[in-house]
Amino acid sequence: MTPNTDTRLASIKAHLEPKKQTSTVNKSQPLKPTESLAEERANPSFPIRELTYYLDGGEEETKLTEKFMFQLERDPLWRMDDHYNLTLPEVRERTLLKLRNVLPYLANESKESFHKRMILMGLVDPAFYTRLGVHTGLFFSTIQGQATPAQYEYWVKRGALALNGVTGCFAMTELGHGSNVAGLETTATFDEATDEFIVHTPTVTATKWWIGGAAHTATHTTAFAQLIVKGKNYGVKPFVVPLRDPKTFNLLPGINIGDIGKKMGRDGIDNGWIQFTHVRIPRQNMLMKYAQVTRTGKVIQPPLAQLAYGALIGGRVSMVRDSANYAKKALTIALRYAAVRRQFSSNPKQPETKILDYVIHQNRLLPLLAEAVAVNFTSSEVQKLYNQLMDQLENARPGQDLSETIELLKETHATTAGLKAFCTWNCLSAIEQCRQACGGHGYSGYTGLASMYSDFAIQCTWEGDNTILTLQTGRSLITAYLDIKRGKNVSKGFSYLKNAGQLSALKCPGDDVASIANLDTISEAWSVVAANAVKISADIYEAAKAKGISKDAALESCAVERLHAARMHSYGYIFNRFADAVRQAPESIRTVLTNLCLLYGLHSIKQNAGEFLSCEYFTASQLSVIREQVNHLCSVIRKDAIPLVDSFNYTDYIINSPLGRYDGNIYEAYFNLVKANNPQQPVPYFESVIRPILSANYKQTEIPDLEIDQ
Amino acid sequence: MTPNTDTRLASIKAHLEPKKQTSTVNKSQPLKPTESLAEERANPSFPIRELTYYLDGGEEETKLTEKFMFQLERDPLWRMDDHYNLTLPEVRERTLLKLRNVLPYLANESKESFHKRMILMGLVDPAFYTRLGVHTGLFFSTIQGQATPAQYEYWVKRGALALNGVTGCFAMTELGHGSNVAGLETTATFDEATDEFIVHTPTVTATKWWIGGAAHTATHTTAFAQLIVKGKNYGVKPFVVPLRDPKTFNLLPGINIGDIGKKMGRDGIDNGWIQFTHVRIPRQNMLMKYAQVTRTGKVIQPPLAQLAYGALIGGRVSMVRDSANYAKKALTIALRYAAVRRQFSSNPKQPETKILDYVIHQNRLLPLLAEAVAVNFTSSEVQKLYNQLMDQLENARPGQDLSETIELLKETHATTAGLKAFCTWNCLSAIEQCRQACGGHGYSGYTGLASMYSDFAIQCTWEGDNTILTLQTGRSLITAYLDIKRGKNVSKGFSYLKNAGQLSALKCPGDDVASIANLDTISEAWSVVAANAVKISADIYEAAKAKGISKDAALESCAVERLHAARMHSYGYIFNRFADAVRQAPESIRTVLTNLCLLYGLHSIKQNAGEFLSCEYFTASQLSVIREQVNHLCSVIRKDAIPLVDSFNYTDYIINSPLGRYDGNIYEAYFNLVKANNPQQPVPYFESVIRPILSANYKQTEIPDLEIDQ
Repeated sequence: MTPNTDTRLASIKAHLEPKKQTSTVNKSQPLKPTESLAEERANPSFPIRELTYYLDGGEEETKLTEKFMFQLERDPLWRMDDHYNLTLPEVRERTLLKLRNVLPYLANESKESFHKRMILMGLVDPAFYTRLGVHTGLFFSTIQGQATPAQYEYWVKRGALALNGVTGCFAMTELGHGSNVAGLETTATFDEATDEFIVHTPTVTATKWWIGGAAHTATHTTAFAQLIVKGKNYGVKPFVVPLRDPKTFNLLPGINIGDIGKKMGRDGIDNGWIQFTHVRIPRQNMLMKYAQVTRTGKVIQPPLAQLAYGALIGGRVSMVRDSANYAKKALTIALRYAAVRRQFSSNPKQPETKILDYVIHQNRLLPLLAEAVAVNFTSSEVQKLYNQLMDQLENARPGQDLSETIELLKETHATTAGLKAFCTWNCLSAIEQCRQACGGHGYSGYTGLASMYSDFAIQCTWEGDNTILTLQTGRSLITAYLDIKRGKNVSKGFSYLKNAGQLSALKCPGDDVASIANLDTISEAWSVVAANAVKISADIYEAAKAKGISKDAALESCAVERLHAARMHSYGYIFNRFADAVRQAPESIRTVLTNLCLLYGLHSIKQNAGEFLSCEYFTASQLSVIREQVNHLCSVIRKDAIPLVDSFNYTDYIINSPLGRYDGNIYEAYFNLVKANNPQQPVPYFESVIRPILSANYKQTEIPDLEIDQ
Repeated sequence: MTPNTDTRLASIKAHLEPKKQTSTVNKSQPLKPTESLAEERANPSFPIRELTYYLDGGEEETKLTEKFMFQLERDPLWRMDDHYNLTLPEVRERTLLKLRNVLPYLANESKESFHKRMILMGLVDPAFYTRLGVHTGLFFSTIQGQATPAQYEYWVKRGALALNGVTGCFAMTELGHGSNVAGLETTATFDEATDEFIVHTPTVTATKWWIGGAAHTATHTTAFAQLIVKGKNYGVKPFVVPLRDPKTFNLLPGINIGDIGKKMGRDGIDNGWIQFTHVRIPRQNMLMKYAQVTRTGKVIQPPLAQLAYGALIGGRVSMVRDSANYAKKALTIALRYAAVRRQFSSNPKQPETKILDYVIHQNRLLPLLAEAVAVNFTSSEVQKLYNQLMDQLENARPGQDLSETIELLKETHATTAGLKAFCTWNCLSAIEQCRQACGGHGYSGYTGLASMYSDFAIQCTWEGDNTILTLQTGRSLITAYLDIKRGKNVSKGFSYLKNAGQLSALKCPGDDVASIANLDTISEAWSVVAANAVKISADIYEAAKAKGISKDAALESCAVERLHAARMHSYGYIFNRFADAVRQAPESIRTVLTNLCLLYGLHSIKQNAGEFLSCEYFTASQLSVIREQVNHLCSVIRKDAIPLVDSFNYTDYIINSPLGRYDGNIYEAYFNLVKANNPQQPVPYFESVIRPILSANYKQTEIPDLEIDQ
């Protein structure tokens, strides 16, 4: 056994075989829940507040977040402890009431400030986030990104910024068409005679579907439809289509809308379906920043069709950030619960052991904690990349040379697509693991994790199905790899592929812990594995191409390997963002961050051990050291587990789970919340159902004594 | 590239680059949804009906299942297409109405027959299953397993079999106590003066919690409480405690019950909390098959405390079977949808491609299909083991030598504990993967998979938390391994550990496909890996013990490795049950089953590649062959994908998802279901919320023009 094993044994001994108490307190009485949590905070190894600032991106950011949390918590419409038994229409109405209350902020504060506020509101109520987000992030962003300056000015004057008379939704998806936007069936046919487009839903499968805000909220939509001019199809373009009369809220002629009803989660957002039947809109309602149709029906096409989907990238950036934030929230609940909940003791005379003291519970939760921090730092980097792209896109003018912007768009797309998928999948899984780690209480509607799962799950599908996005990143990796082979330059995030040949020869520099559990080693290890995975898929691709197969079919032939390559790339990308953040961190928090970063890296290597053995970067015995180090790091980080979730700095209002309370008074708060939401009443259906059941006799005893054969 | 790669390329070419059509039909028109599904059934490689019989355990079983499906479907109270927007009390009432309708069957048909009926009812409505199951499977089973013959006769006469006047629930879990049953706080104190027990809830955390049926249904409960006689605690025993007056349904004196309200799923079951305040029950209400308290307060303890928990094993056996059945249902939906849904085409002139034709979609779903079949066969074996145990337990009489029964109980516990955990985790993950594989439609409340996830999720926690159960199986593996070292005999399922030493030297017999993709090789490979994992954890355990640490602490020191060992063991166990079923299968279905079995085995090896490389059973290049074979088997099984889910033989009523319809008419059925459940109406809160939003102006323009400093 290594010395680390001894540390582990000592730690196990400490909580399973406590020493005789020297204190005068009778320790055979278990600590109260609040005391159990308080003792976790007695001796943090790092300054908690410093870490909060560093995670948030600075003291100012933290303070702004705190101001917003405080405002929300005091807003009576944002009460969050009594919504559990509302009906669908009640939930929807309440969501809209919340929205009403934040509109003054939307109208009056800076975009950045409101954005920060909205992130927080989304953490409290994800359906609210979507309900406002379909207007701001999709409808209005589409106008911002796709309108000419004159069109933009028009819609802002009409009130489209802060919902003054114009509330928008985003009608892209159809019943039969999702990921393949180019395959949408809705048509927008130019009628030169009247200078109008005729928007039309030709089939049931062309019905716009899942349109958030359509069922009850929106007056307008940005509809995506096949542009048809003089009988020719020019592909899918965005059109602003009025849906309802803002004065009466009646549907306009040719508009048919229905409610999509019950969903897995996010019931506060009123998803609807829309059918257009020969709906006429002015030609000026086509958003013409990139593609244009003139009065006489001349069509000018954009240099890159994907420019029209820029708005979707913003959503993906948000989802990387959401993945960090929801995981932080879920872990705050699960870890605080684990520091209070006790189960089993080796000696009936001793109090039960905190479940957080079990090695297996540490192994379930602490790697997820490390991952949440990793994604936190990754999200900041991705946000920077996105802001840069948006600056360029917003300054773009019709007719301008866009080649540089298009390169940046491609890079941002490739990076965010893979990360959106990777991070939302991992976050969903983290939420579920946190939920299960709370045992039966995780299944309750009042402890926050069940609804968090149901609300979050859609992030794996919307604004780009995760599998397809991962494949797209895999495709970009193959392209980058082949570009490098042909001597071309590639963007920074892919540059490690330049050394793919040399990488494959690398091996872990030593067998000792210091050589293995080392940020540089882990970074190199992931480069080796990711480059190898990219090379394998590129080789299959090229071999298929060499057999005369089409590009699409060749890409399909390496789909499994391509998906895998993108996943390996994402591990490495996120690890490197975390390692960068560790290197730049203030000294006071560098040790705790280093341990978390090592845990993230080594645990993810452990989970993908086959890759590292196949590449011969690590040997089987080095992997044993890694497994042992994961256990060791868990036992080290366990001591700071509560200070770490404290550093995430979410108030009890934001956490909104009795199990995740700061003070640890979980049982009383949970019981009170359940009672408050379920007042004791007589059983409502006793007379109608229960009494008949209790008094019936179902035995078939009355059989007529007849013999028909006689 | 191997020949298999060529097969794969050919298959990709076939659907991405279709040949020129020779038929007169204009093939640039996509097939209708119903035609898309019909063509999948044109040429199955095996007789579907034969496979159904084999999966079900014989023709007779299939026909009985079909009869039950038909009865349910025609029962008006079992209507399943209009429950989506019911309130919590409405759902609860409807569940109980369903229950009323099946009681005559419960009263009149054989236990086996009703059990089969109940499995099906559970597949349609899991909350119903729980609502009846807490009576039959927990309350009544406890009486059956724990009562003396006289007590049993008494409760049956009182109507406890078919709910004639007695409806039961099962009060084990407490707010602060779950897995550690020995740590329950509720007390049952013997009062010799009155010959009664006083049942009492001393603290908030002792409140009975999660008690299914307590909130609205039960008249009685089997309460688990610490038996206290003459001041001495004899541990936890079961007591029958009346809760409500069956005539008025009023709570009895000292009983306090509340509703636990909203849960993640299964809202049809009315989980409640119960507090007992000095509740007196006759001494005869303690179930005394194993432990007894005499009139004078003499206590006779049972030979094994766990005999009292036998009822829980039955639940675990059911959950292995549920894991197969729910996965089969989820896969029927996802695979039929995948054979109808089309997305993207490489040529705009061609119809879009079925998503089932994408390699990546096959890789997502077909290994899950293989797993469902593997668990199906495993479940039959485990049921046999359980029936054997129940025979012995039911025939056991007080005073009898129970050592043989206790051995069988231990084996059955160890096997079912690990399998319950392994199979429910995998099934939950399969449901979620099927849900995501349906894209956005998987998030709808009307397509069946979202609620299936929420309903199924609790199976990972209840009746034994999965992590704890897995650790228990790990513990049994270590014990078996050490028993073997000491020359003792172990039960059949663990006997491969006898050769742990020799196993470690084994290597895959060859590099060719035939040597690798071979049932015997895979079986051997899993034995090697599982035995190695058990050996590693046993070594850590023994080393810890050698340092003078307690048994509990030593087990804790190898917790991570023990959990891992149990998982590896389960893979091997399930694979072997599947391989046995293949070997015994009728010839007509042996090929298709062999392919599925190979896919299950090779895919699970691929997912745990690091283990096989570390043990040096497979080399890195053999693992490449395995990965290639997984792809190859997916492309072979893809052709039978729809015939295979057809063989599961669930009617549209049971499937209850428009996406999983037998006829493939998914879009129309889905749209109609959504419309029927969401009639078009004016927006309910237009005047109260929307109009004020649309007409407001939130810009702060009115700033009083005052200078207070003047």
